Amino acid sequence: MKMKSEIERQVKECAAFLRAHDHYCLVCHVNPDGDALGSAYALAGILQKLGKSCQVACCGTGIAAYDFLREGLQPWGEQVDAVVAVDTASVQQWGAVWERFGRCDYAIDHHVSHEDYSPGLLLDPDAAATAVLIAALADALGVQPDVQIANAIFTGVTTDTGCFKYSNTNIEAHETAIAMMRCGAETVRINQLMFETHSRPEMEMWRRILDDIEYHFDGRVACVAVTLQMRRESGYYEEDLGELASIPRQIEGVVCGLTIKQKDEETYKISIRTNAAMDAQELARKFDGGGHLRAAGCTIYGSLESVRARLLDAAGELL
Amino acid sequence: MKMKSEIERQVKECAAFLRAHDHYCLVCHVNPDGDALGSAYALAGILQKLGKSCQVACCGTGIAAYDFLREGLQPWGEQVDAVVAVDTASVQQWGAVWERFGRCDYAIDHHVSHEDYSPGLLLDPDAAATAVLIAALADALGVQPDVQIANAIFTGVTTDTGCFKYSNTNIEAHETAIAMMRCGAETVRINQLMFETHSRPEMEMWRRILDDIEYHFDGRVACVAVTLQMRRESGYYEEDLGELASIPRQIEGVVCGLTIKQKDEETYKISIRTNAAMDAQELARKFDGGGHLRAAGCTIYGSLESVRARLLDAAGELL
Repeated sequence: MKMKSEIERQVKECAAFLRAHDHYCLVCHVNPDGDALGSAYALAGILQKLGKSCQVACCGTGIAAYDFLREGLQPWGEQVDAVVAVDTASVQQWGAVWERFGRCDYAIDHHVSHEDYSPGLLLDPDAAATAVLIAALADALGVQPDVQIANAIFTGVTTDTGCFKYSNTNIEAHETAIAMMRCGAETVRINQLMFETHSRPEMEMWRRILDDIEYHFDGRVACVAVTLQMRRESGYYEEDLGELASIPRQIEGVVCGLTIKQKDEETYKISIRTNAAMDAQELARKFDGGGHLRAAGCTIYGSLESVRARLLDAAGELL
Repeated sequence: MKMKSEIERQVKECAAFLRAHDHYCLVCHVNPDGDALGSAYALAGILQKLGKSCQVACCGTGIAAYDFLREGLQPWGEQVDAVVAVDTASVQQWGAVWERFGRCDYAIDHHVSHEDYSPGLLLDPDAAATAVLIAALADALGVQPDVQIANAIFTGVTTDTGCFKYSNTNIEAHETAIAMMRCGAETVRINQLMFETHSRPEMEMWRRILDDIEYHFDGRVACVAVTLQMRRESGYYEEDLGELASIPRQIEGVVCGLTIKQKDEETYKISIRTNAAMDAQELARKFDGGGHLRAAGCTIYGSLESVRARLLDAAGELL
């Protein structure tokens, strides 16, 4: 893999740190995703291959879904002499785990928004996933990934790129996938688990969203509201709705897809997804929100009717 | 790219054929998909860069969706001294184009089911897409893909692998993607067009399928019927339903997903999709059908109620 020389330097420095300690605790962000736990379990496997003890600490929901990535790891060690965070942009994202240590010795991350909370830092905002950096560390440490490590790294890359579909998918992401396939990564099993398995509550929410989508401005804006009642009735509580939030934008002719998520009686979080014809941030900024060019968000207060009306008015002005 | 030596030999032979003629007609299968037209337009670009004239002939529906892949190609030539088929397994798949020529000089394909209809043949059933073979031909012909060629090859690979998700996705598929990214392929635009743009009729059919899914045998079998009435009401006539046919299997806990597609009053085509716990072919064979281990199909005659009952009985026996 060809990396920029500054990142190469950071990888070497981090590898030296990892060689120098014996008992690790790896931390990843609350409600971890595939890149958070994939990176943590992969690094745990690498450190254990170097004869070190390692535990993974992480809080929130959804952790059990990634238990298959631990297959083959040794039981967590008790002792800790180095605390390493992976894929975690801020201390807030540590959740309750921060209180346990009150410090971080090394952070390995790819978020542009990474806050400077750790003396040791390996940060590459151009990496499609933190797992890409873990693969580079394995290389620098001379560890040949086994199936457990390869599966965990592949899971990080494939989940953070939406199976090589999102705009962050770069050559390095494909190269890391190839390297892990050569090490035996079970790509078919992983992609099926990550992308082709939906819970009954998720399916029900999906159905409700398709039922309720409204079109405005000659079909250029599609809008759907996910109320607390829909949450209760479907049993689907996933905070950000995952892929479901992008359904309105995926409809042919739609320039701007809006998902209005009720947080409490009069608080609504808005997901804005646009195609090349509209700037999502510009719409979000009208309501003191922000984000990226094609995906942004904001919070609007009031009744659902007034929130929807104000949002549609603002979207209409930008068309 | 490392290819098996037999395929390497075939690629060289095919490259020699392509060098030896001047005026081409490229043919791909009826109702072409991204790999069929991607391969044809890519090869057209390659041949035009070698100073040859080239046209693409293909019949059926859905062709306009790929017109963006022609951007940059020269107008079709009139003269034809060599007929080359890409991604086309049999003469039947040529549709009406076969009558125009009544012969094929060279076939380039990756289907296991390829029938021996052409004296010249480049066939690699291990290739994830025919476009992978077109990339190898560009290499053998010393043509550096421009953006048009790179886009067309990338489209073939990404569509035939379901954006690197299906089980046919191999190292070579990722390698071809990387090579085309290096040549400037517009991967974000292509993936958004191919995977994140759904017509209103498709969305409506999606909604109807989610509305109608029934669960049987403790949720291990999910079944949905797509009737001619649903086709009319949604306006969605895509023969094989595309990705929609795999929705029932994607539900957590489902071992066997069944989609019953009405063809006429008393004829139903069945899509069977299973996970590792059931053999889809075994179920299909009970009704004289066939297919693959995880995806198979058959046709059953009778009323919808009797078709569904017989199918569910047979599925229950295999659980």
